[in-house]
Amino acid sequence: MENKEISQAVISRLPRYFRYLGELKDEGIERISSQELSAIMDVTASQIRQDFNNFGGFGQQGYGYKVEYLYEEIGKILGLDRTHNLIIIGAGNLGQALANYMNFERRGFIFRGIFDNNPAIVGTNVRDIEVRPMEDVKAFVEKNNIDIAVLTVPKSCAASIAEQLVSYGIKAIWNFAHVDLNVPEEIQVENVHLLDSLMKLSYNLVSHDKQ
Amino acid sequence: MENKEISQAVISRLPRYFRYLGELKDEGIERISSQELSAIMDVTASQIRQDFNNFGGFGQQGYGYKVEYLYEEIGKILGLDRTHNLIIIGAGNLGQALANYMNFERRGFIFRGIFDNNPAIVGTNVRDIEVRPMEDVKAFVEKNNIDIAVLTVPKSCAASIAEQLVSYGIKAIWNFAHVDLNVPEEIQVENVHLLDSLMKLSYNLVSHDKQ
Repeated sequence: MENKEISQAVISRLPRYFRYLGELKDEGIERISSQELSAIMDVTASQIRQDFNNFGGFGQQGYGYKVEYLYEEIGKILGLDRTHNLIIIGAGNLGQALANYMNFERRGFIFRGIFDNNPAIVGTNVRDIEVRPMEDVKAFVEKNNIDIAVLTVPKSCAASIAEQLVSYGIKAIWNFAHVDLNVPEEIQVENVHLLDSLMKLSYNLVSHDKQ
Repeated sequence: MENKEISQAVISRLPRYFRYLGELKDEGIERISSQELSAIMDVTASQIRQDFNNFGGFGQQGYGYKVEYLYEEIGKILGLDRTHNLIIIGAGNLGQALANYMNFERRGFIFRGIFDNNPAIVGTNVRDIEVRPMEDVKAFVEKNNIDIAVLTVPKSCAASIAEQLVSYGIKAIWNFAHVDLNVPEEIQVENVHLLDSLMKLSYNLVSHDKQ
């Protein structure tokens, strides 16, 4: 499949389709039209058809979509038919919280290791995995076929750590540091800027009050 | 100021402008052109001018923007010139991690209380604040002028808790539950769907491998 031209906006919507289809599947629903899906998801039916057409369409015109088939196909497109080995850099509160988030493992994101440079934390356990020192990252990545690094370190050291991770062969960074990373184009980065999200909420709260 | 027509896409970019301007300010830079800002932020200069024009422009043509003024104005637009009282619903790993995130307080988001329905957690301390039982939320919200509730509860109970929060007078929900909330239009919701974000990263990783 050639995915080059698919916009990040479409890709951003795929996990949400996957989530709703999973719920429909759990409810025992076998078939759904784009109109019905549109009503549940609050997206236009035409948007749904356009999004799915990027991947060949999935459905027979007039018959609706087979829920389980569509769920599985979107799962494959999202890379959920394989496992991803994941390490966490930074064993502070957020790093530990993410390590304890079991939901990720159900989707094939397997937590393999956690690293920190704080001697008070190194050697303690997070979910039965010992926190290792930062100097072990390189050897660990090479040995354990790690593809995703989760970055939960302070802004001030995020750039240099990201650079190191790339040199160790990490292909994807899930970035929680409050800074945009400058990495080579072939490295995939997904940012979760929590403070940005909270500021957006604050904006909407304040501007709503003014109306 | 009339903000009604400003798109959520523009609003989503404001915190990023604010972040970059804060860095420029810290570096002692007093003035910046849209071209220079464009180069640092990897956004077109025309996009920057268009975004700023939604709020009256901020700058004098040909002279560039005054960094500190622009930083402060965008901060005001984002509602950061006032404090917001915030409670966390769900004192699991994620709720505790968020409670411990000091960065939020620097921006005026003050952590006032944390609630859980698990008797094993209620009564323990998170950052010197005692975890209270869920039945205390109503009185606490009324007494402490709480405007934002952070929802870090399982998907299965998120909808009913959100409904309760709205009935108690909460005006904004920062939602980490892996479900879309169905609340009245005047309630502001900002979702952080961590699993969706990780799936998007997985998509980009897998589709890049295929190329």
